[in-house]
Amino acid sequence: MLSGLSIIGHETGKVQESKHFAFSPVKGEMLVEGFSIASAEELAYAVHLAHLAAPAYSDMEADKRAAFLDKIAEEILAIGQKLIDRAHLETGLPEARLIGERDRTVNQLKLFASVLREGSWVEAVIDTALPDRKPLPRTDLRKMQVAVGPVAVFAASNFPFAFSTAGGDTAAALAAGCPVIVKAHGSHPGTNELVAQAIQRASILCGMPEGVFSSLNGEGAILGQQLAKDARIKAIGFTGSYKAGMSLFHTAANERREPIPVYAEMSSINPVLLLPQAVKSKPVELAAQLAASITLGVGQFCTNPGILFLLENEKSTAFIQALTDSLSASAAGIMLNKSICQSYYGNKSKLKALKGVTTLIEGEDASATIKGSPALFLVSAVDFIKEPLLQDEVFGPSSLVVNCTTVEELLLALDVLHGQLTGSVFGEAADLIKYKSAISLLQSRIGRLIFNQAPTGVEVCHAMVHGGPFPATTDARSTSVGAESIRRFIRPVCWQNCPAELLPAALQNENPLNIMRKINGHYTRDAVIE
Amino acid sequence: MLSGLSIIGHETGKVQESKHFAFSPVKGEMLVEGFSIASAEELAYAVHLAHLAAPAYSDMEADKRAAFLDKIAEEILAIGQKLIDRAHLETGLPEARLIGERDRTVNQLKLFASVLREGSWVEAVIDTALPDRKPLPRTDLRKMQVAVGPVAVFAASNFPFAFSTAGGDTAAALAAGCPVIVKAHGSHPGTNELVAQAIQRASILCGMPEGVFSSLNGEGAILGQQLAKDARIKAIGFTGSYKAGMSLFHTAANERREPIPVYAEMSSINPVLLLPQAVKSKPVELAAQLAASITLGVGQFCTNPGILFLLENEKSTAFIQALTDSLSASAAGIMLNKSICQSYYGNKSKLKALKGVTTLIEGEDASATIKGSPALFLVSAVDFIKEPLLQDEVFGPSSLVVNCTTVEELLLALDVLHGQLTGSVFGEAADLIKYKSAISLLQSRIGRLIFNQAPTGVEVCHAMVHGGPFPATTDARSTSVGAESIRRFIRPVCWQNCPAELLPAALQNENPLNIMRKINGHYTRDAVIE
Repeated sequence: MLSGLSIIGHETGKVQESKHFAFSPVKGEMLVEGFSIASAEELAYAVHLAHLAAPAYSDMEADKRAAFLDKIAEEILAIGQKLIDRAHLETGLPEARLIGERDRTVNQLKLFASVLREGSWVEAVIDTALPDRKPLPRTDLRKMQVAVGPVAVFAASNFPFAFSTAGGDTAAALAAGCPVIVKAHGSHPGTNELVAQAIQRASILCGMPEGVFSSLNGEGAILGQQLAKDARIKAIGFTGSYKAGMSLFHTAANERREPIPVYAEMSSINPVLLLPQAVKSKPVELAAQLAASITLGVGQFCTNPGILFLLENEKSTAFIQALTDSLSASAAGIMLNKSICQSYYGNKSKLKALKGVTTLIEGEDASATIKGSPALFLVSAVDFIKEPLLQDEVFGPSSLVVNCTTVEELLLALDVLHGQLTGSVFGEAADLIKYKSAISLLQSRIGRLIFNQAPTGVEVCHAMVHGGPFPATTDARSTSVGAESIRRFIRPVCWQNCPAELLPAALQNENPLNIMRKINGHYTRDAVIE
Repeated sequence: MLSGLSIIGHETGKVQESKHFAFSPVKGEMLVEGFSIASAEELAYAVHLAHLAAPAYSDMEADKRAAFLDKIAEEILAIGQKLIDRAHLETGLPEARLIGERDRTVNQLKLFASVLREGSWVEAVIDTALPDRKPLPRTDLRKMQVAVGPVAVFAASNFPFAFSTAGGDTAAALAAGCPVIVKAHGSHPGTNELVAQAIQRASILCGMPEGVFSSLNGEGAILGQQLAKDARIKAIGFTGSYKAGMSLFHTAANERREPIPVYAEMSSINPVLLLPQAVKSKPVELAAQLAASITLGVGQFCTNPGILFLLENEKSTAFIQALTDSLSASAAGIMLNKSICQSYYGNKSKLKALKGVTTLIEGEDASATIKGSPALFLVSAVDFIKEPLLQDEVFGPSSLVVNCTTVEELLLALDVLHGQLTGSVFGEAADLIKYKSAISLLQSRIGRLIFNQAPTGVEVCHAMVHGGPFPATTDARSTSVGAESIRRFIRPVCWQNCPAELLPAALQNENPLNIMRKINGHYTRDAVIE
C-alpha cells in the first residue's frame, strides 16, 4: 500500500500539508495519491540517523552487509506485479522493459553482495616493518579502503529502478558501508515508495542500524539543495539533467565548508563513428541497427546515439536514406513525463535552427499525447566544428549525422567533441587499423569504447565503465554501473605500527578473509610472515 | 649553471624583463640570480606541447616510461653537491635533511619505475562474452585505467625536492602517462631549475615526446591561475597553504567549462591522543619524543603534531612540565622564508588570544633572523569544543595541549575535529582496547592512524596514505605519497566487443605483460581462455 510518506530509518515521515502528485503519461492525468513532501526537520532527522549509523554500519562484517543487499533484492522481487504496474503508470515504460530493468537492479544488488563476500574490494596493501633497514628502519604500514560516510542519492526519471531508489549508487554506497538517503524522483514517487519500503523491511529483518537508509519526497530543488549542503553528507550520486547536476556540483564545491565528491551523470550524445567499408558493405542493415538504438525506449537512454560521424563514400547516401526510412517507419512513443517531452521538441527546434543543419525527418509534434516522434538531422563536419551548440543533448529519439568529406575533417570534428559516456565504432578489420588515429581520438573523449555494437544497453558486471569525461559526468574517475562503482564511496586509510589486535580483519597477518592483498609489492592471498 | 629561465619542453623560455629573485634565509638577503617570469605565451606554449605529447606518452610501453623515471633519478643524483648547496641557500634546511629528502625523492621515482614494470597498476578487469546467456547474451567487456592528460603541479616551499619539481605528484603523473607542467615555488627557484634541467636531460636522453615536462617560473598567483584555467590541463596537484589551495580548487570548479580534479594538500594539525597509562608510565620520555617531533625541521612538516589530547591523570602535570621543559631547551631554528616566519608568529599570537588558552612557553620573537622559537599552549576540552579557530594550523614548532577531564569530553572534542593527514595514539595495550571508541572517532577524521610513534616522517612505499579529509586535502580519495598516488592521474576506460588486434597489451587474452587481472570476478595472471 502507498502511504505517501517519506521513509525515515525504520519509521515513516509525517503527513504534511504540502503534497506532491505524480503525473501519469499513460493516463495523461495526475494520479490520485498525494506524497507528503519531507520537511526540513524530517530531512535533518534522516541525516542525523545516517550519521549515527555510519560507524557501526561501516565496521560491520562484510558478510552481514552482503546479506542485507541480498535481502533487499528479495524484498523488491516479492513486491511482484504491483511494482511493475505502478512503474508503468508513472513512467509509461512498457512492462517487459520494466521487468528487465527491475531484474537488472536486483542483479546489481546481488553482484555487490558477491563482491563483499569475496572481500578484496577493500584493496588491502601491507608493507611490513624493516627494523634493520639503513639509514632508517621502516615501520609496519597497512592500508585499506573505508566508507566515506552518509551518501545522498538523487533518483533519475529515465530508470525508475536501475538509477533510482535501489539503483546503482544506492547499491554501491550500501555495499561500501555508507548509509544512504535517497531523494525520490518526482516523476515516480509511488515506485520509489514501494522500493523504499522493501529496503526498509530488509533493513529491519537484517538488524541493520536504523539510519542506514531513508527516502525523502521532495519537489523542485529545495530539498535536494538542503541535502547537498548538510555537513554530515559525504558524497553525492546523481543522474539527470546537466542543469540540475551542475547545480549540485557547485553547491558541493562552494556552499559547504567541506567540499565533497559529486558523481553527477548528466548528458552524453554518444558519438558513433561509421567507417567507410562497414557503410559500403551493409548500408541498410547498419541503418536499421542504429535506428533501433536511436528509438529504443523512445530515445530516453543516457547511451542513446545522438551523433553519427559518417566518412563520405559512395554508399553514404544509401545509408542516410535507409536510416531516414527506418526512423520514419518508427512510431512515436510515450515519453517519461511532460517536461522531458516538451524539452525534446524544444531542443529539436533549437538544433534544426543552427547553421547548416538539414532536417532529414522530423515526425509530427505529438507532445499533446506526451509522445516523442523520431527525428534525424544532417550537418557538414565544417559546420559542426564551428558550432558547439550542435553537441547539446536532445534527450529523445533524435540523432544528427555529421558528414565528413575527408579524414582531416573527421579528426578535427572528433577533436572538438565534448566528453561522453560511450563512443562506438562500426568498421571492418582493415578500416579499424586504417582509422586508428580517429579511434584513438574518440577514446580520449569517452568512458566506454564500443566496436560494431550500438551504445544502448549497459551490462552490470566487473569490467563495466558507465561514466566519462565532462559533461557526461562531473567525475571521470568512476563508473555508476558495475562492481567498480563501489569506489565512489570509499577512501584509503593507513594503519601505522598498529598492534595486531586492533587491525581490521582485512589487514591482519593471517588474512582471515582470504582476500587478495598486496604485500611488500606482491599480490597474494598468503598470510603475512613476520 | 643557473640560466634563470623556465624549462619549456626540450628548450628554455626567453629572458624576460620581469624577474623574480630568491631570498636566502641563511644569508638573510636576496640572492643575485634573477629568474625570468614565464610570459602568458610561454605558458600557453608549454601547455600546447604537453597536450600534443599526451597521447603518445600515455600509449608508450610502460617500460619506456619506467626507464625515463630511472633516468630522472640518475640525473638528479648526478647534480651532486651543487644541488644540496643551492637548496640549503634557498630554504635554510640543513644539509643532512636535504640529502635525505633528495634520496627519498629519487627513491619515489624508482618506486614508480618498479610499479610500471610490474604493470598491474592499470587495474585490468575482463568479463568475457557469454553468447548463450539468457535472456540476453553478454558481450566481451575489458576495462583498464588510462592517463587523464596534462597535469599541473604546484611545488611546495617546505619540501624543495619531495613535494616540488620532481616530487610525488610529478613522479605519479609521469608514471601514469601524463605530461607535467610544474609551477616552480618562488622560495627555491634555483633548486627548481637544477632539478627541472635534470628532468629535461632525462627526457631528451630517453627520447620522450618534447612536451612531457616543463617548469615555469612565476610570482604570486597569476601564472598559477592561468595554468589552472587552461582547458588542456586535466588535473592539478598542489601542496601549500589553505588559501592558495582553495583558490585553485574554486578555479577548477567554477572558472573552467570542464571541472577537473584538484589534489590540494593544505593544512593539518595532526592530533595526538595521549592515553592515561602511557602518560603515567613514561611522562618524561613521551614528552621528549613529542618535543622532538614538534621541533623537527623547525616544525615545518605537514605532519607536525599541532594538537595533543591529554586525558587528565595523576601524571598529566608531570608530562606537561616535561614537554614544556623539552621545548624550552630547544633552540630557535631558521625557517623556510620570511613569509612563513611572519605567519608563524602571527598565528601564535592569534591562538594565544583565543578564549581559555594558557601560554606554557613562548620563546622570544626571532623573526628578525627568520628563526622560529618553540611554543606550547594549553586549553581545556570545554573551550576547545566551542572554538573552531583553535584548529587553525600554526605552521611551525608550536603545539596545543587539550586537557580532557573526562572521556566524554575527549569524545566530544574528537567529534568536532576537522579532517587531518594523520592521527596518532600513544597508549599501552589495555588502554588501546579501553579507548577504542575514541580511536575509532579519530580514525574517521584522518588518512593515517599511527600507534605509539610521532606523526613526522612519511615512508615512501606501497601502503602509505598521505592524504585525508578536508581541510587536510581537497580530495580524501587519494594519497600524495607512495605507489597508490598514481591513481590521482588516471581514469577507467572500457573496451566493449573490441577486436583482439586493437586491444591494449594489458587487456589482451595472452596477458603479455603478465600482470594481475580480474577475469570474470577472479584475480589471476593467467591468460584468458575463450
